[in-house]
Amino acid sequence: MACSIEIICVGTELLIGKTLNTNAYWLSKRITSLGGKVARITVVSDDVSEIASSVKEAVRRKPRFLITVGGLGPTFDDKTLEGVAKALRCKLEIDDEALKMVTEKYHVYVEEGRMEKAELTPPRVKMAKLPEGAKPLPNPVGTAPGVIIECEGTTLVALPGVPPEMMAIFEESVASILRQAAGDVTFFETSIDVTGVVESEMAPIIDRVMHDNPYVYIKSHPKGGEGISKIEFHLSTTAENSNIARKYISKTLVQLSGMVLKKGGKIKPVKTET
Amino acid sequence: MACSIEIICVGTELLIGKTLNTNAYWLSKRITSLGGKVARITVVSDDVSEIASSVKEAVRRKPRFLITVGGLGPTFDDKTLEGVAKALRCKLEIDDEALKMVTEKYHVYVEEGRMEKAELTPPRVKMAKLPEGAKPLPNPVGTAPGVIIECEGTTLVALPGVPPEMMAIFEESVASILRQAAGDVTFFETSIDVTGVVESEMAPIIDRVMHDNPYVYIKSHPKGGEGISKIEFHLSTTAENSNIARKYISKTLVQLSGMVLKKGGKIKPVKTET
Repeated sequence: MACSIEIICVGTELLIGKTLNTNAYWLSKRITSLGGKVARITVVSDDVSEIASSVKEAVRRKPRFLITVGGLGPTFDDKTLEGVAKALRCKLEIDDEALKMVTEKYHVYVEEGRMEKAELTPPRVKMAKLPEGAKPLPNPVGTAPGVIIECEGTTLVALPGVPPEMMAIFEESVASILRQAAGDVTFFETSIDVTGVVESEMAPIIDRVMHDNPYVYIKSHPKGGEGISKIEFHLSTTAENSNIARKYISKTLVQLSGMVLKKGGKIKPVKTET
Repeated sequence: MACSIEIICVGTELLIGKTLNTNAYWLSKRITSLGGKVARITVVSDDVSEIASSVKEAVRRKPRFLITVGGLGPTFDDKTLEGVAKALRCKLEIDDEALKMVTEKYHVYVEEGRMEKAELTPPRVKMAKLPEGAKPLPNPVGTAPGVIIECEGTTLVALPGVPPEMMAIFEESVASILRQAAGDVTFFETSIDVTGVVESEMAPIIDRVMHDNPYVYIKSHPKGGEGISKIEFHLSTTAENSNIARKYISKTLVQLSGMVLKKGGKIKPVKTET
């Protein structure tokens, strides 16, 4: 069974079109490459009720992992852990390990001359207030720790929204447990560009090829509209190992290419990733 | 009351990290500039049940508009209207107006020599099968029409996922009704970069300024981590007209700047948009 994952991105900046959601893009790509299956991405504002209801709804769908991104910093608009606590009906409490992590960071900043005082003001302590039962994940490049907590069979991970911090915590503390949960599976994808056949003419071809190759997902991406007949076909599969995955894709490509050429179309490879 | 809008993006390519969700970004920016408030963005796969459940959940939250993006084309993986019909418990039926739009497109393509036959194959007719009670929206740059349907106080709009087609249908048929529903409101935003004060020291300042300026939303975006003290503060507001909006923002900026300078920080404007 696939290891299903949901992502919740918290940030009003994503809903007013100030920020392009590159975090969701990076995480989806990375999770897929680790053998996980991203089932849904939800974007909500910096609002405790919105965060809480989206977390509650996601947990009810029982994904293996739920990853939140954003809202872990020291300012008033960082409300993710408050929302998570509300969703899980638990309290926020100062976590000793998290407080130690935060304290050490400020001492380093002072030593490096980046600031004058390392004192633990309330906004700094806030970053160490975790939902009951949660554990902090070290932040190798920033201040706010990540958070991990188990909840009804779902592992909830909260990551900060600053991209290098999100990526660093994911790589250091999340990638390995996710790969283990996904088991021995490999994702493999490839793309071809087809010219000379329009998308509506390709529809029955794809139907046939998908039917004969049930493990391969084919998606058509028209480039430049139905009238201009250039379409990218993206083939992807998840299999026990990369040999089997490549075999699935090769077999599918041979059949698809044969049918396209018969229709008078032309084929060009786009790129291959492992 | 704010005119609330939800966006549902349909496409497995968004969940495997193949495609960056620039459609959601463009739509959020455009909707915000028209005075609407994007309350949530949801991304689901090309799966009828996933589409149907996300539409049902969104309709239950009673947004004024629900915009779906993607999945309107002729191939098997274009399942949005099937999902919408399932969510609204209605049938898909051939819409005469939509069929006329699709037919005319293929005749034009044949006249322009872009294809040989204009015949209405099942995949082409599929683009004219709409949920009962829906109306097609002309597609000025592609083949599949957009779709509009009223549902329990929510106006549901389905747009294609090819960016130029999505944008063209939005501008031609959706922007005006959205602006009308939003009423006479203007969104205004500006940003300043603050250096020399770390985010945790700014927290109480922001709390105070937000308290004194309840109509202005301030969000901090640390650039380069808490240790390196450069933070962008983004100020935004929605008001009855642009004069009032600018006044709100100016008053807030004056107070915020004063408090930052007092802390020993430096300020640089980032950009202003209307």
